[in-house]
Amino acid sequence: MKAEIVSVGTEIIMGSTLNTNVQYITQRLSEFGIDVLFHTSVTDDPELLREVTNIALERVDLIIFTGGLGPTQDDMTKEVVSDTLGLKLVLNPFIQNNIKEYFNRTNRPMPSNNIKQAYLPEDSKFLMNRVGTAPGIYIEKDNKIIILLPGPPREMKTMFDEQVVPLIKRDPTIMTKTIRTRTINTIGIGESALEMKLKDIIDKKEDIIIATYAQEGKVDVKIIVKENNIESADNKLDRIVASIDRRISKYIYSYDNESIEEVVYRKLLEQNKRIAFCESCTGGLITSMFTRIPGASKVFDRGIISYSNTSKMEELNIEEDILLKHGAVSETVALHMAKNLLDITGVDIALSTTGIAGPSGGTQGKPIGLVYIGIATKDNAYAVKVMLNGARHSIQNRAALRAFNELRKIL
Amino acid sequence: MKAEIVSVGTEIIMGSTLNTNVQYITQRLSEFGIDVLFHTSVTDDPELLREVTNIALERVDLIIFTGGLGPTQDDMTKEVVSDTLGLKLVLNPFIQNNIKEYFNRTNRPMPSNNIKQAYLPEDSKFLMNRVGTAPGIYIEKDNKIIILLPGPPREMKTMFDEQVVPLIKRDPTIMTKTIRTRTINTIGIGESALEMKLKDIIDKKEDIIIATYAQEGKVDVKIIVKENNIESADNKLDRIVASIDRRISKYIYSYDNESIEEVVYRKLLEQNKRIAFCESCTGGLITSMFTRIPGASKVFDRGIISYSNTSKMEELNIEEDILLKHGAVSETVALHMAKNLLDITGVDIALSTTGIAGPSGGTQGKPIGLVYIGIATKDNAYAVKVMLNGARHSIQNRAALRAFNELRKIL
Repeated sequence: MKAEIVSVGTEIIMGSTLNTNVQYITQRLSEFGIDVLFHTSVTDDPELLREVTNIALERVDLIIFTGGLGPTQDDMTKEVVSDTLGLKLVLNPFIQNNIKEYFNRTNRPMPSNNIKQAYLPEDSKFLMNRVGTAPGIYIEKDNKIIILLPGPPREMKTMFDEQVVPLIKRDPTIMTKTIRTRTINTIGIGESALEMKLKDIIDKKEDIIIATYAQEGKVDVKIIVKENNIESADNKLDRIVASIDRRISKYIYSYDNESIEEVVYRKLLEQNKRIAFCESCTGGLITSMFTRIPGASKVFDRGIISYSNTSKMEELNIEEDILLKHGAVSETVALHMAKNLLDITGVDIALSTTGIAGPSGGTQGKPIGLVYIGIATKDNAYAVKVMLNGARHSIQNRAALRAFNELRKIL
Repeated sequence: MKAEIVSVGTEIIMGSTLNTNVQYITQRLSEFGIDVLFHTSVTDDPELLREVTNIALERVDLIIFTGGLGPTQDDMTKEVVSDTLGLKLVLNPFIQNNIKEYFNRTNRPMPSNNIKQAYLPEDSKFLMNRVGTAPGIYIEKDNKIIILLPGPPREMKTMFDEQVVPLIKRDPTIMTKTIRTRTINTIGIGESALEMKLKDIIDKKEDIIIATYAQEGKVDVKIIVKENNIESADNKLDRIVASIDRRISKYIYSYDNESIEEVVYRKLLEQNKRIAFCESCTGGLITSMFTRIPGASKVFDRGIISYSNTSKMEELNIEEDILLKHGAVSETVALHMAKNLLDITGVDIALSTTGIAGPSGGTQGKPIGLVYIGIATKDNAYAVKVMLNGARHSIQNRAALRAFNELRKIL
């Protein structure tokens, strides 16, 4: 089945909003074996939208529109698409009531133009909007499927996951096979090195899609299998994941996109351990990433961002001699920072970073990108040296990921 | 002039890459008075690309393609577009030499298929790629302009800014007027409240575009004026900016997108002052944002992320009595945190945050979103209470912006 995604709206076409909807829908559709061939964005002009709709109807079997379902004059996706398909709009009393209730629940008066949203194309299914007012619409006509979804990403995603996915799964013309997916998340290996290690697995694709997605400092491997029934799909997926696991196990930090800091948080919680951070080159990034997690306070004691040598001496009791002899960016200082923080705070694990994030400050012996990560526990203390590439913020990001990865390994 | 942007490539259409190119190009084209009517993305299939090219040639005057200019078999934008336009490809010895030199400079052997990139459509201009190997192409044919740019955002942007913009500026069919733009960056006022304050100015548009762009916790106002000559454009822009400034001056933190933390950094540097942060609810975000700035160490002493009450007592000498009497989230504690940090560090300005970022921990008296920001200098100390909306990370982001905004005001 061939699909096209059409984004409607001035915010998208004027460049004021980044189109994340299209990426989300495409990724999800691929899980159901649907090939997305075209993305089209068009401003909210009825004539242009009609033209785009006609072109899409000629070249694909499934069209998903996003945007232009709101209550204002500018919102005209439903009107134009229905008209192009030759379908009349009829008032649906159930939706009318739904919209009224939504405004009651949120204690606001219903603006009169919201009634426009209660009109549906004849013979279409409506898709309820749990988190907003504009309902979505599902149309089947002349062997084509046309789906209209709201533009705000949260409303679109909720409706897609809760209502479009079950419809897709039920429709025999779409789901001819059972699809199973898993994502393997890795840190510490580059995308091309990873591809080399998996080359023979990636190359033999018969109803298997294996794709690598690189982000800063990490690479995801996404596996999609298609089979005739659930059992064989599950078996096949497990077999492929196991064979990939064996080859790259030391780089894997999680599955299905649990973040590295969440993995560390979960392990600390399970082991009833508390943690503290002292950061120099990462400048608070590690602490900030960790405290984004709801409930971080259960395992996190404090973070000390000791940028200046004075603060390293005052906050972490690093002796001036050590700083002068080894330099602030050194294995010895990383080790002392972690050990002293452990002593001061009495936590179970203390982590330190010190390095040169650039753009200046590098020397031949200590170039930009050199970072030491120190870890101290009651039984053990060590420091790891890493060399990282990129601009200042990339070096900080990569150093933070590597630090969390070190924590993951010892937990 | 009407334009369409066509993105070519499997990464885009498979959803593995977010399409940031199209947003960048659209925003820049609007500065030259060019209306972008369509964005289209298509997979790298010659037949589909040919179809998309023909549709675009029918409905717009300017087509910008991105992607598919690389050396591999999959890269076929140039071949398909040339063929669709009826233009032959001819070897350009100058480009051939350029590509060879690029590989010499980076000390790598030139793969033989890179020679493909030295072929250009007849009668086209080539656009040199300073940061990669694939050259761009500029074609004029039958009153249409067709521009081919590389897909990697860094290469695309460099080429667009350095080479496409001058061509656009020179072409009389595109630049009929002089365009001047300015962005006013605000914090502390919502988008609709801002629009209300500027409504009569926004409504009278004659060759003036005034648009507001909301991001988390901040709103930008972008002003674009079109005039017949530079002097009148500059005058008009200055006049509009001045009239907007008068109405919303207290919310403006910068112009043309200097970030709020950069404004604070610049002022500290100018005034030769040093700063320290102690954060509770923002969890290191303020320190992390600040240390992203190259050279931050010149004005930044340290950051203390005192999450637990123990750490507030140990690191910041907050007396237990005060914590018990007022609670950690209170004006008194925010004030003491900032004052004590100033004493401990000897910096010129100390800033503190304490609040409830959620998702749990809120009470009737102290709901989620309540944040106190404390500021201490040698002469003065005070705390500001703010109420913020959103999920945990939104509250942290907004609190950090408000904290920097408080610093901006006193500097």
